[in-house]
Amino acid sequence: MKRIKLGSLRKFAVDSLVAAGVSSENAAEAADVLITTDTFGVMTHGTKNLYQYIQKMQAGGLDPHAEPTIDREGPAWAIINGNKALGMVSGCKAMKSAIKKAKETGIAYVGVHNSCHFGAAGYYANLAASEGMIGLSMSNADPVIAVPGGRSKAIGTNPFSFAAPLGDGTSLFLDIALSNVAALKVISAKEKGQPIPDTWLVDENGLPTTDADKFPKKASLQPMAAHKGYGLAVLVELLSSVVTGAGMLGEVASWNLDMSSTNNVGHAFIAIDISQMLPYEQFIARMQKLADELHQSPKAVGCDRIWLPGEMEWEKRKKATASGELELTDAMVKSLTGLSEMNGIKLNFIE
Amino acid sequence: MKRIKLGSLRKFAVDSLVAAGVSSENAAEAADVLITTDTFGVMTHGTKNLYQYIQKMQAGGLDPHAEPTIDREGPAWAIINGNKALGMVSGCKAMKSAIKKAKETGIAYVGVHNSCHFGAAGYYANLAASEGMIGLSMSNADPVIAVPGGRSKAIGTNPFSFAAPLGDGTSLFLDIALSNVAALKVISAKEKGQPIPDTWLVDENGLPTTDADKFPKKASLQPMAAHKGYGLAVLVELLSSVVTGAGMLGEVASWNLDMSSTNNVGHAFIAIDISQMLPYEQFIARMQKLADELHQSPKAVGCDRIWLPGEMEWEKRKKATASGELELTDAMVKSLTGLSEMNGIKLNFIE
Repeated sequence: MKRIKLGSLRKFAVDSLVAAGVSSENAAEAADVLITTDTFGVMTHGTKNLYQYIQKMQAGGLDPHAEPTIDREGPAWAIINGNKALGMVSGCKAMKSAIKKAKETGIAYVGVHNSCHFGAAGYYANLAASEGMIGLSMSNADPVIAVPGGRSKAIGTNPFSFAAPLGDGTSLFLDIALSNVAALKVISAKEKGQPIPDTWLVDENGLPTTDADKFPKKASLQPMAAHKGYGLAVLVELLSSVVTGAGMLGEVASWNLDMSSTNNVGHAFIAIDISQMLPYEQFIARMQKLADELHQSPKAVGCDRIWLPGEMEWEKRKKATASGELELTDAMVKSLTGLSEMNGIKLNFIE
Repeated sequence: MKRIKLGSLRKFAVDSLVAAGVSSENAAEAADVLITTDTFGVMTHGTKNLYQYIQKMQAGGLDPHAEPTIDREGPAWAIINGNKALGMVSGCKAMKSAIKKAKETGIAYVGVHNSCHFGAAGYYANLAASEGMIGLSMSNADPVIAVPGGRSKAIGTNPFSFAAPLGDGTSLFLDIALSNVAALKVISAKEKGQPIPDTWLVDENGLPTTDADKFPKKASLQPMAAHKGYGLAVLVELLSSVVTGAGMLGEVASWNLDMSSTNNVGHAFIAIDISQMLPYEQFIARMQKLADELHQSPKAVGCDRIWLPGEMEWEKRKKATASGELELTDAMVKSLTGLSEMNGIKLNFIE
């Protein structure tokens, strides 16, 4: 397993984006989204995808020079046109706008259309948490989930995230796809030739299957918790695309399988400025009481620890930032190496 | 199966609440929450519980004379003290306040503390939808779910709901508990002596069990979709109780098993005024396109219809309002009859 210095990875990401035509400011912001996500251990949504974002710029599906613009706004809301900029650039602009507006009004909603895959939803929710707010972040995506009673891909995994500050620089946070499992988990089982539980996929007849080989052509993901996950995916579709004007359901192409098409996904961000509602110290004391009570819940046989939502991710991030290093997955090494070979920018692994 | 005229049921509910000391205005509002919920087919959360609410007033856990008051508010938010009033009264006041504020600012959050079981969350989300808004509604509850790795009741089922208008008087809506199944489903299996899937409960060791008899004393509900439902239940706890000052986690007593205690649950309501973000007709056209595309999703073998979230409930409601009648469950008949015998107010079933 290869390792890399966080600083080296950041420089490589920024230089690669700048070489692709992205402004240095936007490149730095996007690199921070991706590398923070890597440090949380969510390696599927971090710098591994940098190569594909840059390929999409070259194919015309993303505009490296674009700056998101505000279509319309009010005291506690805005609709932003991503203008085909990197999803990470539009996502940061949108959540920062929601945070600024929430400081005035208590809560704000900012939606984005004409955007692309924005990495991990949790990054943006944590932006709000780092400002002492509760943040919600979500995005629609190309259809890959079959709705209950269906047999084909009808709705995206539509990631949903929230974060709330714990007062120690970390947060309670959740970042989930609304499928029962991530598509990558199915693909991993497929590559290893492993059978899968019958709760992950439905086949071309809409019936549960344990054959991962059928995915993605002949099988679709099952929603999390059946009709409950389906309903939540519809909520994400409403706030991310119906309201914003982004592509809805089947209008969204795969961001990384259809490189030349505009992705046109939408995102939604909500920030809540807690300190207007109760003294911030009191909020943090209540958060710590909540965390303590959950931590102290009697443990099941064979379990040695109760985790808070997001706690595993923060432990990984603390380890990475303390050492200044990241252990890379094989998929990351392959993708980053490919990008380095393509753009000629040197990538320094730790030997 | 007994039937009742909706008008008779409404009169009985209002008269019973007024006889218990509730103002006629609040009684009418609470009755509307409960009866609308019955017409949606959610018979576990409607007038069946009226008897228990009134018993709780008599035992001192609810104050029939109370009026909720606003603790603090800003342009797009408010915190309301329920003052031990019926949860339905505080819930309606809070969502109406969120709707009013959202008309000014685009989005608003209103939280409630010192409240009690508010019936079905979906009623309040639909209040917003009936005003052309997207509504979110949620509540914490007494702990009944074991967190992942735990073996005891640590967090409530924490119902979560959203609704959005479809333009024809109905809505897309979802109203879910964040447990894998409702406690009542376990109790029903227990009463019938049926085994249950091992995904519903964990036993006193925190291990999955198929023995419904262990619930509620020795078993706890599993969260919906494991860590995902756990995380969402924490989000509901944040917005409903941590921010509002309501009881958190173990501070919440069962509203109907501990009649003399103040329940002190909290609720959270969010309203989003869509028409500020795009022309309302355009929003409705997009909603209909979304609904059409979901409806037309190719069907699984053996399935003859794809349902939208909330569509089954609206069909039941249309049937009930068209006939002006409601078919009552045995549990409703028993509870309503008990209340009628207790308060001497006549209950007119259709013979």
